[in-house]
Amino acid sequence: MSFYEKLKFNADGLIPAIIQEQSTGRVLMLAWMNRASLEKTMATGRTVFWSRSRQTFWMKGETSGHVQAVKEVAFDCDGDTLLIQVEQIGAACHEGYHSCFFRSVVDPGTGAYHVTEKQSQTPEEIYGKK
Amino acid sequence: MSFYEKLKFNADGLIPAIIQEQSTGRVLMLAWMNRASLEKTMATGRTVFWSRSRQTFWMKGETSGHVQAVKEVAFDCDGDTLLIQVEQIGAACHEGYHSCFFRSVVDPGTGAYHVTEKQSQTPEEIYGKK
Repeated sequence: MSFYEKLKFNADGLIPAIIQEQSTGRVLMLAWMNRASLEKTMATGRTVFWSRSRQTFWMKGETSGHVQAVKEVAFDCDGDTLLIQVEQIGAACHEGYHSCFFRSVVDPGTGAYHVTEKQSQTPEEIYGKK
Repeated sequence: MSFYEKLKFNADGLIPAIIQEQSTGRVLMLAWMNRASLEKTMATGRTVFWSRSRQTFWMKGETSGHVQAVKEVAFDCDGDTLLIQVEQIGAACHEGYHSCFFRSVVDPGTGAYHVTEKQSQTPEEIYGKK
């Protein structure tokens, strides 16, 4: 049986994909796929998402060069979430951090937070000045 | 500034929370929180989600005993996803696997998959016979 038959896309035809760096276990980002972008991901070995804001495909790294080579694709018990292991070239985050999850709460009472990693590049360095 | 001000809940008032086991880096599950369940999570140090199907709060482990002790709460660049590090007691998955992501694709062409971990308990052992 194909895993596609186990997947449940939401009312918009989308499924969330957690992207994890295989070599470090670091969770890098979460983005959304539709069936076609998942098929492109499987066929090319590069993550391809569906942009909800722009209503278009986007291959991760198509502008920045920060592509993700797919190493493993897992799916959860309910079939409504993907977990994709990748090798990340450069920074995953468009803000120039290795992971999009670069801020953590330090005080559960107030919700105060801090930045937990160094910014490796500025967005201008990645994408050029706008 | 509080991290609550950085978060964007979706049209249903929900935000996805990736749950990762801090000691192993294993991604255990993804579930949804609303603002109130996130506040309960922060206040109690145990993960509390919002069930979309039952439209109610559920503290992870309230029936099974398989609670999650919150170790760290991170959020992403867009403020629309949480990444919560936990200590997991017992199995995270209601099917008795340590992680809900216990199946992976083995053939990207056909989508054939296999089970990647041992089932530590059956659902009957966790929840009793129904």
